[in-house]
Amino acid sequence: MQKSDILLRDLNDSGILRLTLNDVGRRNALSEAMLAELGDAFAEAGTDASVRVIILAANGPAFCAGHDLKEMTAGRAGPDGGKAYFTKVMTLCCGVMQAIVNCPKPVIAEVTGIATAAGCQLVASCDLAIAADTAQFSTPGVHIGLFCSTPMVALSRNVNNKHAMEMLLTGDMTSASCAAEIGLINRSVLAEELHDATKEMAQKIAAKSSMTVATGKRAFYAQREMPLAEAYDYASQVMVENMLARDAEEGIGAFIEKRAPQWQDA
Amino acid sequence: MQKSDILLRDLNDSGILRLTLNDVGRRNALSEAMLAELGDAFAEAGTDASVRVIILAANGPAFCAGHDLKEMTAGRAGPDGGKAYFTKVMTLCCGVMQAIVNCPKPVIAEVTGIATAAGCQLVASCDLAIAADTAQFSTPGVHIGLFCSTPMVALSRNVNNKHAMEMLLTGDMTSASCAAEIGLINRSVLAEELHDATKEMAQKIAAKSSMTVATGKRAFYAQREMPLAEAYDYASQVMVENMLARDAEEGIGAFIEKRAPQWQDA
Amino acid sequence: MQKSDILLRDLNDSGILRLTLNDVGRRNALSEAMLAELGDAFAEAGTDASVRVIILAANGPAFCAGHDLKEMTAGRAGPDGGKAYFTKVMTLCCGVMQAIVNCPKPVIAEVTGIATAAGCQLVASCDLAIAADTAQFSTPGVHIGLFCSTPMVALSRNVNNKHAMEMLLTGDMTSASCAAEIGLINRSVLAEELHDATKEMAQKIAAKSSMTVATGKRAFYAQREMPLAEAYDYASQVMVENMLARDAEEGIGAFIEKRAPQWQDA
Repeated sequence: MQKSDILLRDLNDSGILRLTLNDVGRRNALSEAMLAELGDAFAEAGTDASVRVIILAANGPAFCAGHDLKEMTAGRAGPDGGKAYFTKVMTLCCGVMQAIVNCPKPVIAEVTGIATAAGCQLVASCDLAIAADTAQFSTPGVHIGLFCSTPMVALSRNVNNKHAMEMLLTGDMTSASCAAEIGLINRSVLAEELHDATKEMAQKIAAKSSMTVATGKRAFYAQREMPLAEAYDYASQVMVENMLARDAEEGIGAFIEKRAPQWQDA
Repeated sequence: MQKSDILLRDLNDSGILRLTLNDVGRRNALSEAMLAELGDAFAEAGTDASVRVIILAANGPAFCAGHDLKEMTAGRAGPDGGKAYFTKVMTLCCGVMQAIVNCPKPVIAEVTGIATAAGCQLVASCDLAIAADTAQFSTPGVHIGLFCSTPMVALSRNVNNKHAMEMLLTGDMTSASCAAEIGLINRSVLAEELHDATKEMAQKIAAKSSMTVATGKRAFYAQREMPLAEAYDYASQVMVENMLARDAEEGIGAFIEKRAPQWQDA
Repeated sequence: MQKSDILLRDLNDSGILRLTLNDVGRRNALSEAMLAELGDAFAEAGTDASVRVIILAANGPAFCAGHDLKEMTAGRAGPDGGKAYFTKVMTLCCGVMQAIVNCPKPVIAEVTGIATAAGCQLVASCDLAIAADTAQFSTPGVHIGLFCSTPMVALSRNVNNKHAMEMLLTGDMTSASCAAEIGLINRSVLAEELHDATKEMAQKIAAKSSMTVATGKRAFYAQREMPLAEAYDYASQVMVENMLARDAEEGIGAFIEKRAPQWQDA
């Protein structure tokens, strides 16, 4: 499964795929190469029945420092001053963020160190996130004249307006405990307990029916954008289809009979 | 007013209607019979001028355990494997949840014990909620292969994404204090103080003009789904109509004259 | 720059415009005159290149008590019972609130004392808000028969539903610390430290590229109302345009060369 040194892939027997950002020298920047790796990894994991849940982790002191500014600057050399190049990179990056949202497998961010700019967006885009208490988050583009406009799409769908605006307009670092309070992450834990915390969460999810989890994750983001009545019509249909699926019949039967369920794809 | 043993109805002199889920042996499950009772109760309360505010409470250790899984399973016996039956139950259940939102009288959930699956949705659908510190909340459908897709419609409109996703994907129990932190309930209180806490909140609201409260509740959910400019146009019209109503003239006059207002329908 | 006694305007050398509500005798009510002053001030500041950030403060024990009820009541004398007058005032008020949102310069509320009804809406409409720990917030229209329907447009876009509903339906005061917990303000500080706290936040923002800040603020509110895929398409375009702007080239260059950036408009 390993295809590159900059993104390590490790799938265990429980169906937990651990993706580890490993371009430590570049603070795991979202270079073109890294974005391509991530896009490929989420696409592949999405259709791989042996993957049940994904942990997105990182090596080194930075979780992810966002775009690779040297690479971006080199892009200015084009005849259009970089417009085509920047468009390409932004499309690639927004594609990766949406690939996380659209991936049928839940994605848990395991955040050590700093997560800044598009690195903070990466955390916000994951379904779940646990951070070391030493982790920090920011959207610092405003310091360098480049507002974190794409990161704010994910950020503002996770935290309330005043909190998002403070991060975006000041560029200040947010501590892990503050990130937990405002909803950017689920919780922070001692750094030495982080690995176990994400593993425990991943194991819980890996033990469920993958069909059920995929159905629910897709429906979550779809219904979130609908008015209430439409959302209920849609979710009702999802629920009826889910009831008719084999794993719900098995799961409910097992519950009534007080035994462990056997999922179709387990 | 009492029509059934499984849903107790008690209207006091202050206009506080106390609805008590009372199917203790089934953990107050949302059986077809219970859903029909609730739908009927909210419809009737909505048009009954003597009802000013509603408290939704429960007898027994469970506030509400969600759908009646034995009843649902029996529904599979139909020639279509249950599809028509599940559709009927989902339509009925989503109708009750929306009846709470659309009811012109505010609804306060008084949560003792556990509120799970559609029981958690019931709490999320109420306008306000206070829980005993011993109460617990979960959307555990994922354990039995049936994702809580309809509960998540209400849940995700009350709490931020990461928190909703954790409840939905893990099925874990959320304590009352955590539920208060994430916004699923207004607050938790000592179990022995719960009854007084909801009563106090209900009395405050019952002392207001019902016309004003109904106007505001309807406008709240309507404007919440509009873009900002449209929401302001709509809310401005609501405000002008409200200013022209007798109770606003009386209320503002009483305020200026430093006397208690006399509402039209009090 | 000073045009009126009821709204003081003070622009310092750093580009921080301090607007101070100064109609102390009327508790800084949003009278027609005050609304006209505010509308004018935000319009002017929006196009004044020397203004980089705005602090909205107040003199006296009340930050702002909302609409001027005596003025509103006098409006009833019209042949239509006040309908045309109320419509005019609501349009004016909603225009001011949206002028804050649409102003290209960030607006920070500095809240001392009470902020009630449209005064609470004013705080909610600002991009950022810091309050004295003695400040209090409420939407008390329900007490006088006039639901705070326009304030709730701003309130419900800042805090979660249950919290908004409690403020709107009970009319109760919310303390500064609670307002910070629910997201209505960024934080509360000791009253004697409030001035320094907003000044520090304003200075941080004033030190950024105004072009970048304006781009980001506009994009924030625009993308917030779009579905996810549309928001990403839009924000990508914003980001590409931002990359091509002179201040991003300068800012990124300065960052790579480890020197301070020189903004075009500084």
